[in-house]
Amino acid sequence: MRFFKEAGIDTLSVNIFSWAALQPSEDEYNFTKLDKIMALLKENHMNVILATSTAAHPAWMAKKYPEITRVNFLGIKRKFGGRHNSCPNSPVYRKYSARLAGKIAERYKDYDNIVAWHVSNEFNTGCYCENCERAFREWVKKKYKTLDEVNRVWNTAFWGHTFYDFDEIVVQNNQTECNSPTESEFPGITLDYRRFMDDSMLECYKLEYEAVKKFTPDVPVTTNFMAFFEPLNYQKWARSMDFVSWDSYPTPDEDPANTSMWHDLMRSMKQGDPFLLMEQTPNVQNWQPYNAIKRPGVMRLWSYRAVAHGSDGVCFFQMRRTRGASEKTHGAVIEHAGTDKTRTFREIAELGGELKALGGELLGLRTDARAAIIFDWENWWDFELCSGPSRDPEYKSYPKEVMRWYRAFYERNVNVDIVSPEDDLSSYKLVVAPLLFMLRDGFAEKAEEFVRTGGVFVCSAYTGLVDEHDLAFLGGYPGPLKDLFGVWVEETDVLPPGDTNSFVYKGLTYEASQIYDIMGSHEEDTEVLSEYGSDFYAGKPVLTKHPFGEGAAYYFATRSTPEFYREFIGDLVHECGIRELMPAIGGVEVTCRENETDEYLFILNHNAGEVVLTEGAYGTDLLTGKTVSGSENVTLPGKDVMILKRKK
Amino acid sequence: MRFFKEAGIDTLSVNIFSWAALQPSEDEYNFTKLDKIMALLKENHMNVILATSTAAHPAWMAKKYPEITRVNFLGIKRKFGGRHNSCPNSPVYRKYSARLAGKIAERYKDYDNIVAWHVSNEFNTGCYCENCERAFREWVKKKYKTLDEVNRVWNTAFWGHTFYDFDEIVVQNNQTECNSPTESEFPGITLDYRRFMDDSMLECYKLEYEAVKKFTPDVPVTTNFMAFFEPLNYQKWARSMDFVSWDSYPTPDEDPANTSMWHDLMRSMKQGDPFLLMEQTPNVQNWQPYNAIKRPGVMRLWSYRAVAHGSDGVCFFQMRRTRGASEKTHGAVIEHAGTDKTRTFREIAELGGELKALGGELLGLRTDARAAIIFDWENWWDFELCSGPSRDPEYKSYPKEVMRWYRAFYERNVNVDIVSPEDDLSSYKLVVAPLLFMLRDGFAEKAEEFVRTGGVFVCSAYTGLVDEHDLAFLGGYPGPLKDLFGVWVEETDVLPPGDTNSFVYKGLTYEASQIYDIMGSHEEDTEVLSEYGSDFYAGKPVLTKHPFGEGAAYYFATRSTPEFYREFIGDLVHECGIRELMPAIGGVEVTCRENETDEYLFILNHNAGEVVLTEGAYGTDLLTGKTVSGSENVTLPGKDVMILKRKK
Amino acid sequence: MRFFKEAGIDTLSVNIFSWAALQPSEDEYNFTKLDKIMALLKENHMNVILATSTAAHPAWMAKKYPEITRVNFLGIKRKFGGRHNSCPNSPVYRKYSARLAGKIAERYKDYDNIVAWHVSNEFNTGCYCENCERAFREWVKKKYKTLDEVNRVWNTAFWGHTFYDFDEIVVQNNQTECNSPTESEFPGITLDYRRFMDDSMLECYKLEYEAVKKFTPDVPVTTNFMAFFEPLNYQKWARSMDFVSWDSYPTPDEDPANTSMWHDLMRSMKQGDPFLLMEQTPNVQNWQPYNAIKRPGVMRLWSYRAVAHGSDGVCFFQMRRTRGASEKTHGAVIEHAGTDKTRTFREIAELGGELKALGGELLGLRTDARAAIIFDWENWWDFELCSGPSRDPEYKSYPKEVMRWYRAFYERNVNVDIVSPEDDLSSYKLVVAPLLFMLRDGFAEKAEEFVRTGGVFVCSAYTGLVDEHDLAFLGGYPGPLKDLFGVWVEETDVLPPGDTNSFVYKGLTYEASQIYDIMGSHEEDTEVLSEYGSDFYAGKPVLTKHPFGEGAAYYFATRSTPEFYREFIGDLVHECGIRELMPAIGGVEVTCRENETDEYLFILNHNAGEVVLTEGAYGTDLLTGKTVSGSENVTLPGKDVMILKRKK
Repeated sequence: MRFFKEAGIDTLSVNIFSWAALQPSEDEYNFTKLDKIMALLKENHMNVILATSTAAHPAWMAKKYPEITRVNFLGIKRKFGGRHNSCPNSPVYRKYSARLAGKIAERYKDYDNIVAWHVSNEFNTGCYCENCERAFREWVKKKYKTLDEVNRVWNTAFWGHTFYDFDEIVVQNNQTECNSPTESEFPGITLDYRRFMDDSMLECYKLEYEAVKKFTPDVPVTTNFMAFFEPLNYQKWARSMDFVSWDSYPTPDEDPANTSMWHDLMRSMKQGDPFLLMEQTPNVQNWQPYNAIKRPGVMRLWSYRAVAHGSDGVCFFQMRRTRGASEKTHGAVIEHAGTDKTRTFREIAELGGELKALGGELLGLRTDARAAIIFDWENWWDFELCSGPSRDPEYKSYPKEVMRWYRAFYERNVNVDIVSPEDDLSSYKLVVAPLLFMLRDGFAEKAEEFVRTGGVFVCSAYTGLVDEHDLAFLGGYPGPLKDLFGVWVEETDVLPPGDTNSFVYKGLTYEASQIYDIMGSHEEDTEVLSEYGSDFYAGKPVLTKHPFGEGAAYYFATRSTPEFYREFIGDLVHECGIRELMPAIGGVEVTCRENETDEYLFILNHNAGEVVLTEGAYGTDLLTGKTVSGSENVTLPGKDVMILKRKK
Repeated sequence: MRFFKEAGIDTLSVNIFSWAALQPSEDEYNFTKLDKIMALLKENHMNVILATSTAAHPAWMAKKYPEITRVNFLGIKRKFGGRHNSCPNSPVYRKYSARLAGKIAERYKDYDNIVAWHVSNEFNTGCYCENCERAFREWVKKKYKTLDEVNRVWNTAFWGHTFYDFDEIVVQNNQTECNSPTESEFPGITLDYRRFMDDSMLECYKLEYEAVKKFTPDVPVTTNFMAFFEPLNYQKWARSMDFVSWDSYPTPDEDPANTSMWHDLMRSMKQGDPFLLMEQTPNVQNWQPYNAIKRPGVMRLWSYRAVAHGSDGVCFFQMRRTRGASEKTHGAVIEHAGTDKTRTFREIAELGGELKALGGELLGLRTDARAAIIFDWENWWDFELCSGPSRDPEYKSYPKEVMRWYRAFYERNVNVDIVSPEDDLSSYKLVVAPLLFMLRDGFAEKAEEFVRTGGVFVCSAYTGLVDEHDLAFLGGYPGPLKDLFGVWVEETDVLPPGDTNSFVYKGLTYEASQIYDIMGSHEEDTEVLSEYGSDFYAGKPVLTKHPFGEGAAYYFATRSTPEFYREFIGDLVHECGIRELMPAIGGVEVTCRENETDEYLFILNHNAGEVVLTEGAYGTDLLTGKTVSGSENVTLPGKDVMILKRKK
Repeated sequence: MRFFKEAGIDTLSVNIFSWAALQPSEDEYNFTKLDKIMALLKENHMNVILATSTAAHPAWMAKKYPEITRVNFLGIKRKFGGRHNSCPNSPVYRKYSARLAGKIAERYKDYDNIVAWHVSNEFNTGCYCENCERAFREWVKKKYKTLDEVNRVWNTAFWGHTFYDFDEIVVQNNQTECNSPTESEFPGITLDYRRFMDDSMLECYKLEYEAVKKFTPDVPVTTNFMAFFEPLNYQKWARSMDFVSWDSYPTPDEDPANTSMWHDLMRSMKQGDPFLLMEQTPNVQNWQPYNAIKRPGVMRLWSYRAVAHGSDGVCFFQMRRTRGASEKTHGAVIEHAGTDKTRTFREIAELGGELKALGGELLGLRTDARAAIIFDWENWWDFELCSGPSRDPEYKSYPKEVMRWYRAFYERNVNVDIVSPEDDLSSYKLVVAPLLFMLRDGFAEKAEEFVRTGGVFVCSAYTGLVDEHDLAFLGGYPGPLKDLFGVWVEETDVLPPGDTNSFVYKGLTYEASQIYDIMGSHEEDTEVLSEYGSDFYAGKPVLTKHPFGEGAAYYFATRSTPEFYREFIGDLVHECGIRELMPAIGGVEVTCRENETDEYLFILNHNAGEVVLTEGAYGTDLLTGKTVSGSENVTLPGKDVMILKRKK
């Protein structure tokens, strides 16, 4: 506790993996140790994020109720071990996890220092057991009502997989349609199994949510996300959470834009509400290929980055290094040496001091974003399961295609949201929807409405092939978006790395790479902004603009280099009158948050060396108290941060 | 139907995966939909290749009779999914698949537009279940009669694996002798398991064959092969088929010689009878690393290539793109757009028109090949299972070694057959048997007889190590071929890539690579044509010629570059008086087919650009009607074809 | 037999895989064939190393008692196949294997030509079946007595894995804590499972040991090791063996220092007693990526290398090539050709002649080593299971880190032992303990005592993190060795290949690479010999020397290039007054063995070409009879050997 105070740490997540301790047997609960911890924290005026402890079931439960353990992708029953080891459709698991959450809530409901509930921990991956098989059949029945509809949406006529009874439906693993976790003979069925598994885990979350809300209706509930974690549709989950929190573990050599994109996603999932950086390492990880230490200043820089994108707090994993098991080599605020005389501790304490000095000034700020990128978990699943257009993971990566567009906004210092296709788009002027292979029902109408009322909408190659059942659109791609874009994509070519094409945009030649949509025809009023430069489709459109109502829709038929996206997005941003917060400087990231009266410009220098800021950097730096006018040259040291407050 | 006619398509394969539709439950059959299709086709004067629909069992059958599903290589029981999902030794599968084939034949036997039966589809891979284990024991008992013989041929004394009861014999998978599908502690046992599994699947085919023949004795029966598909000994299968058909899916960047080799194999399996190109994609595939579109002209070029090598037809998969499941992204004659206004459709229609104009002129032609390459499926299996001489897939590839020799014929425009060691060799002047690691019983005598009566016979390194039980020959390699070659191979060296040797042939130095047979001695009358240039075996023979009766036998003790094989085969071809159809031009393929009076020279330009033909290209081009004399220069555009008809 | 005599082979290992032959059914034993072999060998005055035949159980036993077969890492039950196929905790296996060993011993006890027992063969790998699960629980109970202690040492509080009943404990495979054989969520549990599995197999060995000793108390017993074979703690096993023997199968391109290190390990495991080279190939292997032939002279050179490091014999696998199964392509004294007219046979016969001429002169010599390297199997296991500091196999290889230090001794021609942390260190002047991630109980005290009484002790980066339960030491690394080294390692940085640091040692700059311990502080009397040259820890110690009692302890905080280790070990060797046997010559290996009066200098030229020896090479060459004075130049041809005898 002394160390925590010294470090300026005022909030602690506790009770994350204590199920076995709290419930030593089926009928026995034991809160002695947790009682002591809760009392100690209260006594020390610490805020508590209280976990429900259900992310790993006790060994006795696995022994007594083998049904609680999972069956793996190969079809092999697990025994006991690891975490996220419970079948989400096990009645035993559901009963005892919700009961435990309720018991904890009931016991500690009067602690007013509980600032949030942390349900389970890093919800994770699937199960293929008989519980799940039964539950999947129910889920299918509920969703599709009749077997005719099941057979239609899954196109079971292909290869004669027609189901005549719901009980013939099976889990989707290596014993059935899937050669590997990302390959399926029937992507439509496997896609539904992913949805089902995601729903199953979300139901487990909700059972615990309700159990704690019953006793503490006013304490907000969350669970910690893990960036682009594919198995769980976080955008759906966020709707059942009071606030979003996530764990940020970038690789030591990460491209800074990655984590920024994830922060933006976290903020956008609750329509701009602040989120919480629940976990980050103070210094080192233990599961990377090369676990480099965070260089001096980096932990502070990355902490402010979270705030810059919308976090209302900065937490660490772990407080004290565990002595044994897999995370004993993961960094901690208090190392095995047990001392505050470490570089890490000093840096944390300095940050703690700064944040204390800032007080609550940055809490609750919001981000004014007029541009958005659409990211759709279900599209991710389905595109991954699609056989084609390539097996190269670079070509098949939906997140990487999203990053191509995100980077352009990031490098231009433009605030951008990362939204779901189900979100309201009316507040944006510019929306980019990269690689929307699958179009959800109603999305085309939404996009049309957005453009009709003045929006600028952009899509990229391989868009609009299938509906939400993974059934191809008939009548030509991009399916129901054909009218909006005014184009018909006849074929898509895919060439190996190095085998590129080219196009000219505003006088400069750019590389076209990887995949190449080839248009069969386009509307008369579709403007061809650029054409392929070579191959048998030389002269075919590569970038088109289609006026539609008050707005316009752009189709970009291939992939290119960062230079192109930066240039093109720059033009669209100007067209839409969206603000670039500061002129771009390499390695310097800029975001802006605001309240009703003021705005706060966050300037983050990811470079090792100092940079000189010129225009745009004006206001009073909250960290130094100095005021800069924006007309003199201001120096920002390597890895340093500036938070400029100024009137709106 | 309108589209088919427009495209010149006159033959359709139907009913390929309809088992679940045709038999909705154990006692019920429903032909309503197929009746309609058959009537429609008849009405439209379409030929039908009618499939038996047994390549994927219905879901209800897997539910009711779990024994029908396979156990995989790891030993895990499958549930339901995929295709080729039935255990070939399941009594249930055998009963219902044959019954279905019979019912279909009985129902449609009077349709005179059924031009062929298509049994199952792309027969595929193995099973390791208890049905198979029981059947394997029976198979072994039938083959070897006594346990003493079993223990002898499997050399079970090694590692004390002696069997005292047939019931102690087990399937060959990861639960028994096999660390991986291509590694076995007892290759002899695993080899027999491969033979058994191949036989099991062939029996399934035969049951259906008999079932349809009962009703339609005059309709020829086939199933579609897949080039060098290792698990099935197509040469054996072909004997039970009325004609051979196959599915050709080259990678976009394939070496053209590959597909040509496969076409030659297909033709040779029925002693030169025409085969059928059952499937090819009209434009794009969906399961390659990079699914490039077939460039304009390529589909036509590759279609004529099939004809050039012996196909009597050109078919496509798929007619109309399926909306869902794994092949929705695979090319089709009719795309999702549902229009004939596509590049693909236009090219097909043009080809259809050309073929219609050709009429039946090219049907039934034969290829006069005086050279043959021996390819032996069982040798492939056994060499792959052999521990040694290398683990490098390049070194261990039997097909690649065969290609080294095939390419020399291909590049010299020499017709060549790809035959089995069981085939009659008497019509050939030159036979090359690359890498015959395993020699079948009686083959050495056959080879000796071939050479004695004037043939030229060639083998390459690592030949003649084991007999057909994978038992090493005692007395020196190449075992029973020692007399024929007049050499004794004492040791075989294997060196990593880049660590090469050399030899001189006719004044030029060539590289020796990968594996190096070192001869301990050779007969007095064995002529040493070339010697190793370096290492401790410098001066040892690398190429020998042994006169034997009226002919000669050549042993090539290592591997080399294409230049050597081209030169060496050129010399042998001249020695044997075999015709080179036209002087070689890079990227231009030439074959010749003939009937009693005429011959047809197919000239295929695989280059993107045009080539100029000089000598050898004379006759009347069936595609343009023009006559060329062979003395003027003739231009053949890139990807174009010429079929020169002339008197023999 | 004629061939053996011709080859000078006087000792044969027999009966290695004959269980199925010796025991055709549960109640029947049949020694007919073995009787004949034993009589034949006796008659021919051959020595026998008699094997117990238990490394592969009979097929009938697997059929009758399925419990005898193993369950694999995935959790799948095996059927029958391979070798090392018995569950070491199967009561059936233990009963019948010990019984067989006893029966053989009883039957042949009067054969005075049995020179040793060879128990089983190449003991190997694990099992995860229910027998093992039960036995593991017993093992845990016996070791830790109480569940409280179990929960403490395994730190089960982490992720709530607390056990409330011994029956809740499970095997450690992919069904429980292990994602792969080298990754575990609870390394402490998995480490104990490895110890348990090692113990289980050792118990099987001991049961057979006792069974044969009952009848032949004076015949020494061994089993054949396989170099650094990770699953078995050979140092522990050696204590239960009368002498050590091993099988040496270097890759064709091996670094000669490797095999020499293994030979030194074999000698050191029995405190310098001679060992036996039980197996080596006469010419070729069959399971390497590229099975190159041993070049002429290499088999002889490598045979003498074994003797140079402490072997009292040179044996071969296999005598006659088996006709079938996986080793038919492995080299043999007598090849399939069945002749003595092979290069291989000639070389063996020549070596046999030489060894016969040497008589017993070299038998029983010992090695005087004053330097030792500590190698600890349990540390290997635990470091491998550790999540961190890197996933790169190069970074994570404990043997490779040991080799960095060994090579320095090897290249300086210094005799060195490879010892266990449990061995007595008092006879050494210099001990290097590379990468002792785990410190056994009491080891720190032993190391302190060693240094206090004058020894020089060296450790390297990532030392002293955990105790023998894989629990991290609190209070700072290197844990209980902190006092000895006088340093505190605060953090460890790990950077990708190519991202290096540097340091200066004695005026020369060396590269620091891979991992970088960063010291937080050091004692006043700790001498900083070198510092990091760059990065944020530039100036921090990289090499320290701490005087302690009469000796000194060196800590080397990173990894470097061979040049540094050679230089540094050279300095330590001089500091300790340890003899370099001869000045270093590239590719020439020198060792020295001795008896009470004489010493024998072995000089081995691994180069292809000749070398000229100058100083140090004096004495009488036992192989040529020539005497050299050490002052003239002596030429040693490529791949040749010299054994110089001289007075001590």
